[in-house]
Amino acid sequence: MTRPLSFSAFLMNTPNHNLHGLWREEEGYQRNFNDIDLWVSLAKRLDEGGFDSIFFADVVGLYGNHRGGWEYHIEKGLQVPSNDPSMLLSALAVNTKHLGLAFTASPLQEPPFNFARRISTLDHISNGRVAWNMTTGFLENAYRNYGYEGLASHEERYGTLDEYADVLYKLWEGSWDEGALLKDRESGIYADPAKVHKINHAGKYYKVEGPHLVSPSPQRTPVLFQAGSSPTGRDFAARNAEGIFIKAPSPEIARRQIEETRQLAVQHGRKAEDLRFYQGLSFVIGKTEEEAQRKAIELENKIDLEMMIAHMAGAAGMDLGNVSLDTPLENIDSKGVKSFIHWIKEYTEGRTPTVKDLALYHIRTIRIAGTPETIANQLEQWQKAGVDGINVISATIPGSYEEFIDYVMPVLRQRGLARNPGEVHGTFRQKLFGEDRLNDRHPAAQYRGAFGPSTKS
Amino acid sequence: MTRPLSFSAFLMNTPNHNLHGLWREEEGYQRNFNDIDLWVSLAKRLDEGGFDSIFFADVVGLYGNHRGGWEYHIEKGLQVPSNDPSMLLSALAVNTKHLGLAFTASPLQEPPFNFARRISTLDHISNGRVAWNMTTGFLENAYRNYGYEGLASHEERYGTLDEYADVLYKLWEGSWDEGALLKDRESGIYADPAKVHKINHAGKYYKVEGPHLVSPSPQRTPVLFQAGSSPTGRDFAARNAEGIFIKAPSPEIARRQIEETRQLAVQHGRKAEDLRFYQGLSFVIGKTEEEAQRKAIELENKIDLEMMIAHMAGAAGMDLGNVSLDTPLENIDSKGVKSFIHWIKEYTEGRTPTVKDLALYHIRTIRIAGTPETIANQLEQWQKAGVDGINVISATIPGSYEEFIDYVMPVLRQRGLARNPGEVHGTFRQKLFGEDRLNDRHPAAQYRGAFGPSTKS
Repeated sequence: MTRPLSFSAFLMNTPNHNLHGLWREEEGYQRNFNDIDLWVSLAKRLDEGGFDSIFFADVVGLYGNHRGGWEYHIEKGLQVPSNDPSMLLSALAVNTKHLGLAFTASPLQEPPFNFARRISTLDHISNGRVAWNMTTGFLENAYRNYGYEGLASHEERYGTLDEYADVLYKLWEGSWDEGALLKDRESGIYADPAKVHKINHAGKYYKVEGPHLVSPSPQRTPVLFQAGSSPTGRDFAARNAEGIFIKAPSPEIARRQIEETRQLAVQHGRKAEDLRFYQGLSFVIGKTEEEAQRKAIELENKIDLEMMIAHMAGAAGMDLGNVSLDTPLENIDSKGVKSFIHWIKEYTEGRTPTVKDLALYHIRTIRIAGTPETIANQLEQWQKAGVDGINVISATIPGSYEEFIDYVMPVLRQRGLARNPGEVHGTFRQKLFGEDRLNDRHPAAQYRGAFGPSTKS
Repeated sequence: MTRPLSFSAFLMNTPNHNLHGLWREEEGYQRNFNDIDLWVSLAKRLDEGGFDSIFFADVVGLYGNHRGGWEYHIEKGLQVPSNDPSMLLSALAVNTKHLGLAFTASPLQEPPFNFARRISTLDHISNGRVAWNMTTGFLENAYRNYGYEGLASHEERYGTLDEYADVLYKLWEGSWDEGALLKDRESGIYADPAKVHKINHAGKYYKVEGPHLVSPSPQRTPVLFQAGSSPTGRDFAARNAEGIFIKAPSPEIARRQIEETRQLAVQHGRKAEDLRFYQGLSFVIGKTEEEAQRKAIELENKIDLEMMIAHMAGAAGMDLGNVSLDTPLENIDSKGVKSFIHWIKEYTEGRTPTVKDLALYHIRTIRIAGTPETIANQLEQWQKAGVDGINVISATIPGSYEEFIDYVMPVLRQRGLARNPGEVHGTFRQKLFGEDRLNDRHPAAQYRGAFGPSTKS
């Protein structure tokens, strides 16, 4: 029996997210990203169109230099300016019924006590539809925006995120017992003090007394996403994440990644099915195969390939701004570049790959161009590889999502590959796993009932 | 000519804010504070009813002990549980047209870079209706929730807030010049790099590189509120605040406070009229004077006086939980209590004041009970004392505000003491001062154009 896929809209509150330069097109309304109406109307459309969630990526600093500085980033709008995604969510919550509301945040951004409270507040506001994409932050400038001299080591970053999550779990799962909130007008007892606890966390990075100030929200812990692909990142995901965003260049590679991570989760005492994998994909839809291919090429010609390079290289801490697009990758003296030449070579079928190929590789390997039927065929392949959901990358908003909803979704529904809008009710976790709260195998569960009553001092 | 007063609704996202215990009444809907619909419908009502703003107070920890612990706070719902007010604001923004959206936050809660970005995001979302109540935080438990051993000294707290504000001003006013955002589809230039700057702040408490990630919002710096009453707090307000919340026990005392603070502002190079003063007041409305007085006493009998004491004393770091309400204040061995006995004595007209009098004093001195006409008379007195606005304290929501809008507002409008709803358009600062941006006398203005172009590195 076919299981429906889960669909997420992959967005960022900035003019250019993944497919760069398209804000210049007539329909590139993301150039007006400061306008809340753009996001509210999109969220409504997604909600009614059968998407399970809207996911806002985020960075809190500039990407690494391009052409020796950051002039390029500002001029092109390379994920700057950008707005804080968490601030939009209550506006989207009150304008939607079912849509999961996911966003990225890192421990850099605010102390765990504050983050816990904000997430819990949002989970109340949205009736349990919040998800957090757990990230460490990876940009030099971001660290320098938050008081550090520069990027912390990979280990340090994950060590911090580990303890940050631990504090959050204590606040979300352990500070308020079930049944603590009474609101009993007769007796005048609002909450039962015997069921509310300080957490008294004292670790390497954080010291947090508690209690959590917010009463238990529908999900308590939000749905937890992760997107890290390093060994440390994948280990963290296997232990903590419920949803994992991947961008595999093929279903085969996705299958390998997914199986490895599921096995890792099992080693950590979780079940393979405790994890849901979302593959990032963009779509070009045609009435015929030929039309779709033609549209794909037209779109490719509108994408700013240098921006694609600046984004990728800048994320990896490399500056490829001073080499032209037709430079063979082999001629570039960079360990970073050398490390992925073999990927690209596989793709260019032996032809010496250039910088331009690197950009095209990143566009094409996550793009499906076809008729709704052939797109459905390919999504079946991704599903067979173990993928549970698709993180839909847009060329333009709302255009890319409207097309997907209008043309692809109906075909997917016929095949049982997509649900009807609003078919599953309740919290976001309910939609994904059939329950509102984290299961007992998750590390957060250890804090349920772990803190004794101590309302003195 | 009479100038209209500005009306703000003084709220907190918790079951009990100022007048405690009323959640137990049928109409005490604030007990359901977790429900966003309560706040959205209230905000709409205020917006249509001619209120200029909704203001959310906040604390990020428990008040000081009562009866030796915090059991009492939980049981009674003494400002706990509570939700983060900033998370509601975009939901309120998209459901209102004119209403200013004010909330309290302290430097404890998040690094300045993050706060700056969130505020700017909200200012975009609301088309320039955000206000920030600048506070240091004053609760032991709050400090211990954010990694500190305990409450920092008063000086240290204001020193931190001073530098925090300074960083924010640099990001809001100095990082992006006017005209930086181009969104020029033709040339492909999204923003002009020559007009975007890092701030490279390095001070005693903070180190922040920049640039600000958000393009200039309608107000840039949000409208700045302050409520501190200590000498340091008032000096800070005189330098930084545009709106000041006071809770004077009489128009005469308000007049003194207002004049002193305005003079202080002038000493700091600002103008007396750069500050707007909001007096906190609650209202009991009757068809006749007698009915109003009867309703005032009925309401008083429903208020939980011990909670009033626990709140006041807990805020001051005193525990009065083990003395009964009829204990004479003079018998209490506490420097804190002794320091305000003379205030209360003035009010009890010589009769030896008790703990109960202390609670009643706090209820009655900020309450006006009367017909709409006598309430208008008294508001005229407050205005003559120099008050620019009223921060309306509620017994119940939405009830208290509905009554005020339905019965008092029309009389105030007849007298020119209140504006018609939506009479003044635009940003919140536009409503208060007739301009969108901070004037040149404000310390934030020094950072306009202060940072050179340096898009290298």
